[in-house]
Amino acid sequence: MDQKRDETELFLPRFDAAGLVTAIVIDADHGRLLMVAHMNAEAIEHTRTTGRAHFWSRSRGQLWRKGETSGNELVVEDMLVDCDQDALLLRVRPAGPACHTGRRSCFYRRVESDGRLTFLGDHAQG
Amino acid sequence: MDQKRDETELFLPRFDAAGLVTAIVIDADHGRLLMVAHMNAEAIEHTRTTGRAHFWSRSRGQLWRKGETSGNELVVEDMLVDCDQDALLLRVRPAGPACHTGRRSCFYRRVESDGRLTFLGDHAQG
Repeated sequence: MDQKRDETELFLPRFDAAGLVTAIVIDADHGRLLMVAHMNAEAIEHTRTTGRAHFWSRSRGQLWRKGETSGNELVVEDMLVDCDQDALLLRVRPAGPACHTGRRSCFYRRVESDGRLTFLGDHAQG
Repeated sequence: MDQKRDETELFLPRFDAAGLVTAIVIDADHGRLLMVAHMNAEAIEHTRTTGRAHFWSRSRGQLWRKGETSGNELVVEDMLVDCDQDALLLRVRPAGPACHTGRRSCFYRRVESDGRLTFLGDHAQG
């Protein structure tokens, strides 16, 4: 563990080999996990300057403002960083469903012991 | 987006090039984000069979049972998967602090607009 990163007062994101950190997005009101994505330095910068969540799309290989096509943007209340600075927590106010399936959260299925998934209600996580 | 993965009832984790998925760990009681780690197929299997959270340590390059040295294991209540199946949510009952710094959560610093970090109290996230 990098002692410098876990006790410093400086924001020093530790990007992986692809230049990314993990971004965890939760609803600022009730703390529910909405989605997980990735951010590069540019996505972090755009998020901080605009107050709207930006990510790096690994599949499309481009910067992406959440909601740029769906309108379901995420207004960022604040951002926390973890001990080794390779993960960010964004507390947001979502303008609509965070998941592309139309659900509030991307986490809508439980993994059962037999390897099946059970679909949960849209508020089942909390 | 892989339609098969987001609407299927089958658990088909989508591992990245390093064979990993992101694992988000929250406290089952109040939903607070505790830590973020990575799991390979072996870590998922060990977690499911033992009911204790196992991860893959990227820095040490080995399977790791959370708490194996500290005693601060994570008893897994259940596990959810996200739409494209490249992230898992573990809802756990922690035996002690989840963070190696002795804090309950690894997310104890807020990123300020000037690039400084503010240390928060140990319950400030919720």
